[in-house]
Amino acid sequence: MNISIIGTGTVAQLVGAKLMEAGHQLVFGTRDPDKTLARTEPDGFGNPPFATWLKKHSAAKLKSFADSAKHGELVINATGGMVSLAALEAAGHDNLADKILIDIANPLDFSKGFPPSLSVCNTDSLGEQIQRAIPKAKVVKTLNTMSAYVMVNPKLVPGDHSLFLAGNDAEAKAAVSTLLIEAMGWQAKNMIDLGDITMARGTEMLLPIWVRLFSKLGNPIINFHIAQGQAPSKA
Amino acid sequence: MNISIIGTGTVAQLVGAKLMEAGHQLVFGTRDPDKTLARTEPDGFGNPPFATWLKKHSAAKLKSFADSAKHGELVINATGGMVSLAALEAAGHDNLADKILIDIANPLDFSKGFPPSLSVCNTDSLGEQIQRAIPKAKVVKTLNTMSAYVMVNPKLVPGDHSLFLAGNDAEAKAAVSTLLIEAMGWQAKNMIDLGDITMARGTEMLLPIWVRLFSKLGNPIINFHIAQGQAPSKA
Repeated sequence: MNISIIGTGTVAQLVGAKLMEAGHQLVFGTRDPDKTLARTEPDGFGNPPFATWLKKHSAAKLKSFADSAKHGELVINATGGMVSLAALEAAGHDNLADKILIDIANPLDFSKGFPPSLSVCNTDSLGEQIQRAIPKAKVVKTLNTMSAYVMVNPKLVPGDHSLFLAGNDAEAKAAVSTLLIEAMGWQAKNMIDLGDITMARGTEMLLPIWVRLFSKLGNPIINFHIAQGQAPSKA
Repeated sequence: MNISIIGTGTVAQLVGAKLMEAGHQLVFGTRDPDKTLARTEPDGFGNPPFATWLKKHSAAKLKSFADSAKHGELVINATGGMVSLAALEAAGHDNLADKILIDIANPLDFSKGFPPSLSVCNTDSLGEQIQRAIPKAKVVKTLNTMSAYVMVNPKLVPGDHSLFLAGNDAEAKAAVSTLLIEAMGWQAKNMIDLGDITMARGTEMLLPIWVRLFSKLGNPIINFHIAQGQAPSKA
């Protein structure tokens, strides 16, 4: 399938590589491809620049936000949550119409240092903002509650652990589930459909404890699991 | 140990009963004991009134907020999160000084219906508000990320699942951990000390997804587990 990834950071790279392994055709979107390719320094987390990654993954293409979005039958928002709305605006809402838009981003605001806060939460979410901005896109919020290592290789975390989905379009959620099962190795039994896009709130609000756990445990290979016992019988 | 529970709802009842089974002396606190005892109708969730519960647990005492707080060497806030600060004010901050104050409450605001929002979150939390209001109390935020059934009987949920603790006083957190291990059957390996009281934010912000999962799965016997894999070796 033709897939666009909006963004070029570590999440974009890891998700993109995994989708290419599974046989998909990837075009990454960035604001200014020449500038992105000219960058030679690692990012803020010490990850190599996109140009280095691209040399090892030469089947991938890098284009403008809009040209990337035109390519994809399915589009993935893997930008930082604070710039997602602007990036998707630049991608062109018409280029996203009637397409599945997987939103992996979290509205983490690091402007006041660590730990970050959320720039939107509680009564709204980035997932909802994106769905409102692009009503014709079929936004599916998923994968955003774990590190990219776990997104693309859930077996790194032993045992059962959970993947949440939220979105207004049931068929889009089903198609995304199939993609994540086939390309990433997720198991259907560990996927929890939370309901409509308003539940992007619940998943984005997992980030504050996730960030603390990551910092406390010193390990990004963690994930939430919803452990479940027998429901009490009604008296 | 002499323990006070501020509140008389289902959480207070289940936690109190379990602590009495373990040999502790319980005094519950309410705004107006006569009024609480005169109530004969079930609460909003269909649970029997406190007077009915008290008949079956006659070793427990019911007093005013302040008289309850005076009794406890350790105090548990099991009020609804929207009224916790007022209830603890009525309990008397001097009566809580130098005591461990376990805060189980969540600031869930149901005033606009279901699902509730949080009345405070992201850059502050109820746990922090309580600690600021009563600087001399040793606030430990814990147990608030699950139903009361699971709090007092973690074995209802099979396998490992997590109990979070947040608070500024390391000794207080250690004492609370011991109490929860001895009286409730929690295992040390499943307890995660998140750090200081600011991490009450992270645990309270789990509630939006918890509420949705409860409603979706129709089962309160669920809990978050932080599943963990091998940390990647540094390249």
